[in-house]
Amino acid sequence: MTEKNIFAVILAGGSGTRFWPASRRLRPKQLLPLGPSAPRSLIGATVERLAGLVDEQSILVATGKHLVEGTRAELPSLPHDAFLAEPCAKNTAPCIGWAAALVALKDPLAVVCVLPSDQHAQDAVEFRRIVALAAESARQGIITTIGIVPSRPETGYGYIKKGKVSRSGVHDVAGFVEKPSREIAERYLNSGEYLWNAGIFVFRACDMLSAIEKHLPEMSASLKLVAAAHGTSKESAAVDEFFQSTQSISIDYGVMEKEKQLNVVPGEFGWSDLGSWESAWELSPKDEAGNSAPRGTILVDAANNIVEDLRSQSTQEPMSKKVIALVGVEGLCVVETDDALLVMPRDRAQDVREVVAELKNTDRIDFT
Amino acid sequence: MTEKNIFAVILAGGSGTRFWPASRRLRPKQLLPLGPSAPRSLIGATVERLAGLVDEQSILVATGKHLVEGTRAELPSLPHDAFLAEPCAKNTAPCIGWAAALVALKDPLAVVCVLPSDQHAQDAVEFRRIVALAAESARQGIITTIGIVPSRPETGYGYIKKGKVSRSGVHDVAGFVEKPSREIAERYLNSGEYLWNAGIFVFRACDMLSAIEKHLPEMSASLKLVAAAHGTSKESAAVDEFFQSTQSISIDYGVMEKEKQLNVVPGEFGWSDLGSWESAWELSPKDEAGNSAPRGTILVDAANNIVEDLRSQSTQEPMSKKVIALVGVEGLCVVETDDALLVMPRDRAQDVREVVAELKNTDRIDFT
Repeated sequence: MTEKNIFAVILAGGSGTRFWPASRRLRPKQLLPLGPSAPRSLIGATVERLAGLVDEQSILVATGKHLVEGTRAELPSLPHDAFLAEPCAKNTAPCIGWAAALVALKDPLAVVCVLPSDQHAQDAVEFRRIVALAAESARQGIITTIGIVPSRPETGYGYIKKGKVSRSGVHDVAGFVEKPSREIAERYLNSGEYLWNAGIFVFRACDMLSAIEKHLPEMSASLKLVAAAHGTSKESAAVDEFFQSTQSISIDYGVMEKEKQLNVVPGEFGWSDLGSWESAWELSPKDEAGNSAPRGTILVDAANNIVEDLRSQSTQEPMSKKVIALVGVEGLCVVETDDALLVMPRDRAQDVREVVAELKNTDRIDFT
Repeated sequence: MTEKNIFAVILAGGSGTRFWPASRRLRPKQLLPLGPSAPRSLIGATVERLAGLVDEQSILVATGKHLVEGTRAELPSLPHDAFLAEPCAKNTAPCIGWAAALVALKDPLAVVCVLPSDQHAQDAVEFRRIVALAAESARQGIITTIGIVPSRPETGYGYIKKGKVSRSGVHDVAGFVEKPSREIAERYLNSGEYLWNAGIFVFRACDMLSAIEKHLPEMSASLKLVAAAHGTSKESAAVDEFFQSTQSISIDYGVMEKEKQLNVVPGEFGWSDLGSWESAWELSPKDEAGNSAPRGTILVDAANNIVEDLRSQSTQEPMSKKVIALVGVEGLCVVETDDALLVMPRDRAQDVREVVAELKNTDRIDFT
């Protein structure tokens, strides 16, 4: 059932403060059981979504050195060497290059699917169908991206302009565009010619390495040293040296936007980047009054609230030893963790960062 | 400095659900550091308020058997035998009678001041002046109550109608009236003739015993047996027997309303019965945005909220290891305890009882 030679590289280096107090430096968003992924973490759901398409031994997870332990704990079924520890954050191009180089050592023609670790896809079957379509396109030697069919004039994402249809379900990429203004986003939405850039890329390992050689020649040279050191006692030092010295640059900016020939597969599989507590509420199962809350929550005349109980105790026993009661409130976001409590209207979800800033200002970095 | 022969009987039998989740069966309101009493408990503040007027060895605290331990812990400076353990709740008349009988064994002419344990008085000096005035009246052999000069047309209290002035600052009681309608309460307020019944009574021990003998003869007979057993091996059994068999009745209904000659001293000392989280907010110190919150609370664009952190850890160290953050909310009441969290608008404070009812309905009596 598993398609042959598809590898997955899951990018799990993000931190992000938009899910404070759940997300922390050592417990970033992808490790949290947010929205519909619960009780699994987002990264756990991401791996599960690949089942039947990618073997578990063909999955690589790239994450920060300090996050390897926590990430491995969320993905106990993956092999020990599935985790690529980035010594420092250098955006996406270096770690995608590194992963491509490692896959190429096994099979340069293997197809690699790069995926963010913290997204949601409602329809996993359709998701796999689209990835398989992109893999077919990639097998022709063309780096292929999956673009999300937009459902609203979102100004927070980059867009991909579709070109002509190259084969069933696959288009040329006519261009990448930066986050648009509201007005332009409306135009994009209505035109039907633009897709959201979700950071999902599918390619043969050799094609990505070739593209990096073309567009980022210095990075390519260092990557060859890393590949040469693989499996030797010098590997760790080579990786350190690579990340120390390499340019910090995104794969979009460093490679995609410079590559002449790219394909894009439009996808509609209930995608969400789960960008805030607001979108966690939108995606979560809710009661008839619109509340998303753990079992046992007492809701008296309360509507459209999201309650998250992320205390370590409560994830172990669903009906945990703390009662949360909401009386007469609407549209609130209430998040409990072991050491923090957040109360705010859902529609202020973007302002969580102000709390994190205030914690830093008041020397409480431990809470960030 | 201490006036001779004034005893105080503090009634601490109440439970009350209006301060859930802070108040519980084993941690009733009077044991909590609410409003301006913090970090002392209300009962601690009540005892402290008597300093200079009543010696600590002249204070009796009547409370339920199950609450003696917790109450004693809040009042470590009181003698061990200061605590009268009621085997069961029988309203106020039996325990006031019991306390009066015990005081009478030492000195039948001693003045006794009966006080609820869970009230607030802003101006302790004026409070003591008023009690001393009532004590003078009581020494004339007239049971005297302290009535609070009303500041609003409150419909939740009983009222006392003032009669003629019997001496400086002291009036006859013209009558007791039940909780009035809003309209009648407005009339009472405007008339200037009515006072709130705060449950504060001052009398000589012998006068109360005499009044009980007159109006509650059966109770009086049983009380004599309790008094006779005092200090003997039979005391505990006598108290049990008394509480088992005696009528459950308030001192107001059983004695005061039947007594022909009573005095009342109008008092204005910033009194509050601290009836709900709303009144706790009203009385608490607040920041310039109207928030009453512990030090360290993060308030982003938040106004007129009350935040109570009553976790056992946080009472020990003010800057405790939990961050509470409120973003963009107004007029909320947020209460954290070790095992519960309440979020509601302050103006819904009366509906806390619905939470307690729901907990009982869902077999979570431990949280009530």
